[in-house]
Amino acid sequence: MVGGGQLARMTHQAAIALGQSLRVLATSPDDGAALVAADTVIGAHTDLDALRAFAKGCDVVTFDHEHVPGAHIRSLAAEGVTMLPSADALRYAQNKRAMRERLSQLGVPVPAWRPVTSVADLVSFAEVGSPCVVKTTAGGYDGRGVWVLYDPEQARPLLDQGLDLIVEEKVPLRRELAAMVARSPFGQVAAYPVVETVQRDGICVEVLAPAPGLDEDVALAAQEMAIRIAVELDVVGVLAVELFETPSGAILVNELAMRPHNSGHWTIEGARTSQFEQHLRAVLDYPLGETTPTAPAVVMANVLGGRTDGMGIDERVHHLFAADPGARVHLYGKQVRPGRKIGHVTVLGEDFEDLRVRAAVAARWLSDGDGEIYE
Amino acid sequence: MVGGGQLARMTHQAAIALGQSLRVLATSPDDGAALVAADTVIGAHTDLDALRAFAKGCDVVTFDHEHVPGAHIRSLAAEGVTMLPSADALRYAQNKRAMRERLSQLGVPVPAWRPVTSVADLVSFAEVGSPCVVKTTAGGYDGRGVWVLYDPEQARPLLDQGLDLIVEEKVPLRRELAAMVARSPFGQVAAYPVVETVQRDGICVEVLAPAPGLDEDVALAAQEMAIRIAVELDVVGVLAVELFETPSGAILVNELAMRPHNSGHWTIEGARTSQFEQHLRAVLDYPLGETTPTAPAVVMANVLGGRTDGMGIDERVHHLFAADPGARVHLYGKQVRPGRKIGHVTVLGEDFEDLRVRAAVAARWLSDGDGEIYE
Repeated sequence: MVGGGQLARMTHQAAIALGQSLRVLATSPDDGAALVAADTVIGAHTDLDALRAFAKGCDVVTFDHEHVPGAHIRSLAAEGVTMLPSADALRYAQNKRAMRERLSQLGVPVPAWRPVTSVADLVSFAEVGSPCVVKTTAGGYDGRGVWVLYDPEQARPLLDQGLDLIVEEKVPLRRELAAMVARSPFGQVAAYPVVETVQRDGICVEVLAPAPGLDEDVALAAQEMAIRIAVELDVVGVLAVELFETPSGAILVNELAMRPHNSGHWTIEGARTSQFEQHLRAVLDYPLGETTPTAPAVVMANVLGGRTDGMGIDERVHHLFAADPGARVHLYGKQVRPGRKIGHVTVLGEDFEDLRVRAAVAARWLSDGDGEIYE
Repeated sequence: MVGGGQLARMTHQAAIALGQSLRVLATSPDDGAALVAADTVIGAHTDLDALRAFAKGCDVVTFDHEHVPGAHIRSLAAEGVTMLPSADALRYAQNKRAMRERLSQLGVPVPAWRPVTSVADLVSFAEVGSPCVVKTTAGGYDGRGVWVLYDPEQARPLLDQGLDLIVEEKVPLRRELAAMVARSPFGQVAAYPVVETVQRDGICVEVLAPAPGLDEDVALAAQEMAIRIAVELDVVGVLAVELFETPSGAILVNELAMRPHNSGHWTIEGARTSQFEQHLRAVLDYPLGETTPTAPAVVMANVLGGRTDGMGIDERVHHLFAADPGARVHLYGKQVRPGRKIGHVTVLGEDFEDLRVRAAVAARWLSDGDGEIYE
């Protein structure tokens, strides 16, 4: 797996059960996966020679992020390395313009959008005074590379930086959802229950599985749409389709990710097969695993880097385990930086209201070491 | 963790979630845990200098087997290394005579037994013609070091080898059970549901959790007995108490193990906290995790090394995943040798009868690559 972050770290856990050992290409020995995987290579994912050396002896090479240049993936594939997902598929997770164009061609519902090369493009797209969303076509994540503009002139500094941009309507939201599917080279697909994702400042903070109160037909339609995208784009591995649900109950595709995804962390305990094992099964062309949930309600909350003063993480974990012995904690071994995802907590049960409180209290406690964790 | 087998391998998976990285002392780079853990040291667990070098920088040293000499554990503890469980506790998992003596003193029910130094000891213990069980006090496992004798004279070759032996009555069995508990240095204890273990040729082949049809009072008594043993022997970590259930429903202690144990592999998916995480929480003096089962019935079957001709393990896994997408497979990365535990399969559901067939078919298929896996 190219990339040594938490996704590779958790994929390594899944690989162990399958009798495999994940080889990881990390940029630093301190990367989350590099700390725990026996077979870690240090190198840059933008360096073709490093990638080539890394790939030697691998059955298949896959990715924990979208930042490997397509040209490098193509080069290695041409040299006989099995790279999954392929550069052709991954392009739609790497470039928002390519993704929007392709999904529009396929008739998949997306927000109204267009490419932007000048302020004039924005003026002709948006009514003056109504907000629109400008995004860089590549490299954005966790709210970076996304700007809500109320005046087309606000785009000028972005254009002056030479950024490749698209503009989209600011979709009125009921909430955000995510549909995850997996697809193997053989062509088998498997769909997980559709989940609700809760964002704060552009960062996913909470996932509810399955999405509470979601109309069954809408859930089924979202799963079918995700399967169709996986098939049409020839995705191999897991595919997370981030969705907007509008107040009228329509669903629009926001983003695609072709790797294990934050919206699927709940599957580690909450589904019979985790997204990490499913991704491995898919890229290794094993038959896929059951996606059946293991509990009626599952809530995952991200632990973001917060206060670094006061008690250390070890002491925080200690108190959390005392207060909530059923909380499932996953820590990524990363240095704490404010707002950085350093772990997550999953709780399982019957009732979303209780679970959301438990998950939020646990995540906040691990972030900051304060709040009320004992009732 | 001293020892690089499958127990360390699966403990490493659990350590990753806790933000830890397990350091492993393995005897070979091919050991199951050495293949997957980033921080593996190669050395002999009988070599005090190797143990000392290994322990340097560890918060706590624990064990994946009972073979570290007590004197070495005491030496390192005297030098300030936190060794858990302690040599004083571990002695009762290392030496059957010490264990039987101590449990007898505590009034814990065990089979009738006595030490054996001569054939005369056997003659006076057993009625001639009635079978008895002779065991080496140390080093036996998976049926090794255990002999059923029908004539005291059969013990002579064992005595001639200079083996340290005990003799026990051959207990009439309804079945075998196991009670697992965990205990932390703080003194917290947690008990898992009592399970049924099924042995073949002295090797555990199947575990049913919870033990089907076990009287609730008996289950509770077994848990209380395991807790009492953990407390009295000052065990830290998980403690597996192997039990005999007699036809009259009495329970007797057979063996003790002070480490993650085959009878607890079902907890990976079948309990809210796996035995591996629980062992880490205990030795790190974290509060213990919930032991609540995640399904009404769980069956674990060991995969023993079988046929090495025909299809390879990868192809076998492929077929198994196609036939049973809900089977949870754990492979240990070991070289196949006949009868060696090379992995296990866990299935979860409502009905033991179905689950036992699924688990047995899956395990046999992975062992031998033959049998009927498709219905």
